[in-house]
Amino acid sequence: MANDVNEMSALLHEQLRGKISIQSKVPIKTKEDLSLAYTPGVAEPCRRIAANPGDAYKYTSKGNMVAVVTDGSAVLGLGDIGSLAGLPVMEGKAILFKEFGGVDAFPICIDTSGITDEAQIIDTIVETVKRIAPAFGAINLEDIKAPRCFEVEKRLKNELNIPVLHDDQHGTAIVVAAGLINASKVVGKKLEDLTVTINGVGAAGSAIARMLLKLGVKDIRLVDMKGIINKNNPDTMLNANHAELAQITNLKNQSGGLAEAAIGADVLIGVSKANLFTQDMIRTMTKDPIVFALANPNPEILPDEAKSAGVAVIATGRSDFPNQVNNVLAFPGIFKGILSAMANSFSDGIMMTAVKSLAGYIPEGQLNANNILPSPLDKNVAQVIANAVIKYEREQKLNLSKSTMNTNNKFEK
Amino acid sequence: MANDVNEMSALLHEQLRGKISIQSKVPIKTKEDLSLAYTPGVAEPCRRIAANPGDAYKYTSKGNMVAVVTDGSAVLGLGDIGSLAGLPVMEGKAILFKEFGGVDAFPICIDTSGITDEAQIIDTIVETVKRIAPAFGAINLEDIKAPRCFEVEKRLKNELNIPVLHDDQHGTAIVVAAGLINASKVVGKKLEDLTVTINGVGAAGSAIARMLLKLGVKDIRLVDMKGIINKNNPDTMLNANHAELAQITNLKNQSGGLAEAAIGADVLIGVSKANLFTQDMIRTMTKDPIVFALANPNPEILPDEAKSAGVAVIATGRSDFPNQVNNVLAFPGIFKGILSAMANSFSDGIMMTAVKSLAGYIPEGQLNANNILPSPLDKNVAQVIANAVIKYEREQKLNLSKSTMNTNNKFEK
Repeated sequence: MANDVNEMSALLHEQLRGKISIQSKVPIKTKEDLSLAYTPGVAEPCRRIAANPGDAYKYTSKGNMVAVVTDGSAVLGLGDIGSLAGLPVMEGKAILFKEFGGVDAFPICIDTSGITDEAQIIDTIVETVKRIAPAFGAINLEDIKAPRCFEVEKRLKNELNIPVLHDDQHGTAIVVAAGLINASKVVGKKLEDLTVTINGVGAAGSAIARMLLKLGVKDIRLVDMKGIINKNNPDTMLNANHAELAQITNLKNQSGGLAEAAIGADVLIGVSKANLFTQDMIRTMTKDPIVFALANPNPEILPDEAKSAGVAVIATGRSDFPNQVNNVLAFPGIFKGILSAMANSFSDGIMMTAVKSLAGYIPEGQLNANNILPSPLDKNVAQVIANAVIKYEREQKLNLSKSTMNTNNKFEK
Repeated sequence: MANDVNEMSALLHEQLRGKISIQSKVPIKTKEDLSLAYTPGVAEPCRRIAANPGDAYKYTSKGNMVAVVTDGSAVLGLGDIGSLAGLPVMEGKAILFKEFGGVDAFPICIDTSGITDEAQIIDTIVETVKRIAPAFGAINLEDIKAPRCFEVEKRLKNELNIPVLHDDQHGTAIVVAAGLINASKVVGKKLEDLTVTINGVGAAGSAIARMLLKLGVKDIRLVDMKGIINKNNPDTMLNANHAELAQITNLKNQSGGLAEAAIGADVLIGVSKANLFTQDMIRTMTKDPIVFALANPNPEILPDEAKSAGVAVIATGRSDFPNQVNNVLAFPGIFKGILSAMANSFSDGIMMTAVKSLAGYIPEGQLNANNILPSPLDKNVAQVIANAVIKYEREQKLNLSKSTMNTNNKFEK
């Protein structure tokens, strides 16, 4: 079966010679077409943008164009295969942007070969993205390994004036958080009362932890290579990101490995490797445990096994089981929203809005243990998220202008 | 009229929000679509490319994807307006690639703002293009000012393993050379007997001079800001490119300005500014003079004026006169050819092949003073040039393998 999918996929890619092409919005049939789309007419939009750079959003494709940026250092489960070998994934991402969100996206595969120093690799990625940013309305970072991805994202957010999002972190976190909101409702627990254990503290695990804290979850245990991350035990922290997370997680200062971290947990989230969760672990969790086993293509535990150990709700990354956690539920809508609203960054408010609109997409009456998230193939999801983001941004601007008015009134008095 | 075109063009750009969009070659409707185009199936082409980088041409869009690269330093006649303001031109170029050559092309607008040192600007452009090269099958440099463009092109040709072409140089030179071959036939002169004066020695003028020398023209006079470029007079050379050209042009060591350079010339080519050619100058040329007045949108002299001063053949950049010299006659076909043939550089042989197939596109019986070049709207031209390039490359490879066989045979003896 897996071999079939691989062979079929290779054949599809070969037959089409890749998955994206460039489409002209303007047919060129007459001299007039040529004179308007190209010379001499094209000089006019150029002049206007030169006079007012913001006009690029009016006269070019920039406002709906996303760069899908990778260095190929963490492609799927394949690891650091380089940006050329990552291109099929980036093209895949680009077509999902288009098919689900109506957003144009183009692969920027950054070749960092020949550079060995980590700081220099980060500089190179940041510098390259900044240099090619003019044609793009937003940046989607993709398949860049942790902790490199944190520094690249932080610097680009600071140094660019267009929105930047690392989808492997925040796209995943949005879908997981929305799924968890609904799973909690199904089992009748409140977010703020949950104890959540997350196994795997790379890009996805870190972002999920931070997102859940923002949503009100208080007790989170993070487990990575050296066991439960604990601020009193430097050995458990592999990098600066772990050290940061150590300060805001593990309230009870617990030590040990995954088995210890599962004891008494309401929720067990795996963004790690196949088969790491056992039935014995699950039996140590609280009543009605929730398990998100998100390793791809083989989850940390299979749904049937989990259920027979007493799990109330299980989600995986797989399309052949219910409750599929798939980033395509988030990124097309959130980018569509942010581009439409011309927002300048993926603020916490926008992220929360995306989480809540995705969770709310399933009417409460239809929530159940096998229906905590919509199907990744449901093309209405992106528009619903986009609408929520657009509305949120409109309200932000209105509040901002009201508060400015109030300030002005004060000055007038 | 000019204002109408400008207003209409601005409106067209605004209505469409730019001219390019990304098209998915794969519809995503079912779970199977998603599993083949994206995860888990997409891992297979990734693995194959990681094992064999050449497979990127088989499984991705790379092999038909051109980067249209600019720093925005010489956009149309607008000058150094920056790469963001140049974006409408790059999008225009991209749609011409697609509409005429079936070649996908995407704008890479490089922001060099903040850098003042010329060597550093060149480094930045070269470095950025090298870093983002993996997703592309070829590089089209566009609207980069001279002499910067020469160094950028030279370095990228050396340092990249995909073909690189600066269209403002070589695209223009191909069309001019093809037009001149046909114009010479119309007036019954041979290329090797021609005296050619070129006014304007930037990107286009320099490339035209070099191309004509390769085609057998012997006597070329170049005129720039300081008059006729003369190897004995350093004041006439503004940069290293001029110094190089001084060694291979101006056989008779002439001095003076444009008026002096026109005396006794068979051909006068302007890639300079409106209205620089006078009837008096033309009257000093040889019998049946040929004039290419290519300044845009207003030529160095209007066709009626030129003809009443005795010009036999006149070409301009304008679509409202006969003999329009427009790069769209060359770049879609030559890139289509080089990508199809998977040639690794724009060799002199490929350039000559393009010139000859473009000149030969008009059957000898149909050549006349008003028909030295096909219409830029003729969409068959690109395929004819591409076919010629592909055939040339096939023969090159055949000769190469024959000579290798001969060599092998020698060794076997």
